[in-house]
Amino acid sequence: MCVSLASDRGLLLDPIAPGVYGRLPIFERVLAGLSEAISNLDPSAHPEVLRFPPVIARQTILRAGYFESFPHLLGTIHAFSEHEPAEAPSDLVVTPAACYAVYPHATGRVPVEGRLFDVESWCFRQEPSDDPERMRAFRMREFVNIGSAERVHGWRKEWIPRVQQFLARLGLQSSLALANDPFFGAGARFLAMSQREQELKFELSVEVRAGATAACISCNYHLDHFGTAFDIRTENGEPAHTACVAFGLERLALGLFAAHGALVEKWPDQSLRLLGLSRAQC
Amino acid sequence: MCVSLASDRGLLLDPIAPGVYGRLPIFERVLAGLSEAISNLDPSAHPEVLRFPPVIARQTILRAGYFESFPHLLGTIHAFSEHEPAEAPSDLVVTPAACYAVYPHATGRVPVEGRLFDVESWCFRQEPSDDPERMRAFRMREFVNIGSAERVHGWRKEWIPRVQQFLARLGLQSSLALANDPFFGAGARFLAMSQREQELKFELSVEVRAGATAACISCNYHLDHFGTAFDIRTENGEPAHTACVAFGLERLALGLFAAHGALVEKWPDQSLRLLGLSRAQC
Repeated sequence: MCVSLASDRGLLLDPIAPGVYGRLPIFERVLAGLSEAISNLDPSAHPEVLRFPPVIARQTILRAGYFESFPHLLGTIHAFSEHEPAEAPSDLVVTPAACYAVYPHATGRVPVEGRLFDVESWCFRQEPSDDPERMRAFRMREFVNIGSAERVHGWRKEWIPRVQQFLARLGLQSSLALANDPFFGAGARFLAMSQREQELKFELSVEVRAGATAACISCNYHLDHFGTAFDIRTENGEPAHTACVAFGLERLALGLFAAHGALVEKWPDQSLRLLGLSRAQC
Repeated sequence: MCVSLASDRGLLLDPIAPGVYGRLPIFERVLAGLSEAISNLDPSAHPEVLRFPPVIARQTILRAGYFESFPHLLGTIHAFSEHEPAEAPSDLVVTPAACYAVYPHATGRVPVEGRLFDVESWCFRQEPSDDPERMRAFRMREFVNIGSAERVHGWRKEWIPRVQQFLARLGLQSSLALANDPFFGAGARFLAMSQREQELKFELSVEVRAGATAACISCNYHLDHFGTAFDIRTENGEPAHTACVAFGLERLALGLFAAHGALVEKWPDQSLRLLGLSRAQC
């Protein structure tokens, strides 16, 4: 059999390019179970559920300020234009995070109770690595809340213990930490410090393979950054505040395999139940 | 509600960039049902099931000859290199078709009974259009057969009536036609003619919206093109032949909505049963 398997566990193919892995069925089944379990976590009645492609308008990413903060992680799509048979920057980039796709659709007034989106997409980060937890292409699931500062900040606060309990029920030991994004360039240190001082980003990390931990869930408060950028306003006309809870699905799956072993049928009852998997299926 | 819907059917968001659509839940549910129904179509016992990311090694696409035949459809990812903080072509492109990801993993000898892969990935084609059936980002499911010329050619032949019946059971009127790929450049006409003369490509088209049809399944025989390019050999050491049956999942979903209407709960019993959907879920 010339399909060789990364980490000998039958989860991922050895990559042809760093950080780009083919997935085997059991890995995909666990990932689908995680997606379902995450849906069940949300206590709201009717989030607006949207699924987005792995590419996004460059214009959206420009408006979001991604080019300024994280140009080193971005993948820009070049292609033939209609006018000339030669490669040039197209109007698209590979999606850097799932929530960006929502904001241009939310432009305008948000009702007093806010809006809650449930989104998912394949995401891309240009950080070639041989560590399977540092994939360049991976799936991100997010809940995105848009509304007044108080409601959105309170919503994010409620989610932190909820995701901590979620990881515990999956049988994963996690640590919560204040964090910052990997900003680029001369202002990086200042931006990171400011983000930490304002407590805008919390990350939950789990062991993803022996001796290596990685952040698998982040709880982010963006203040009015996206509200201003995408002209999203509260009922009283002020720029809306936004927050998101983001799940790195591949990292969560790697965490489950690291904690419970390669044989899913031997995982703890509670983990399987949460993932909607029966021993017979595995 | 500022989320406006393409075609007023609650299936897709109006795109921010041409051909790049957010998907609403009912569209995704039908697509998942199609994916399951396609799995059930395959009479083989154990295909090798692999799921690939939406990006792929540029080297793989070079080896496959895609740059020469379809440079106008390709999206190349540019990103910062490790050495210089400026955009340059990376080692990746957005995946043009699902089956390309398989071939580098199949290098070597194929057993006498051949190998059968079941693959899926998001794909990208640079053809900006306002027609929802001509998406730039879409999902493609493929069965890929690798082996001797006789076996592979026979396998492709068997699949043509199978997919015709599949579409009929879904309640879709289809037409089968000999087809050619949209080759680029001076040699395009010759390549297309040669492809037709050798009967390498058959397409099944369905109505995807009032007055518009599109190919939603193709049955392709590649001769030893990929066998030679990726050094895949039969037991007796000759370059293996390959064939694939490719399903455009979004086009099939659009075809179902076009044929049976916006309300999935009113679709014919047989269609719902094939898709594993119950009226109560819809």
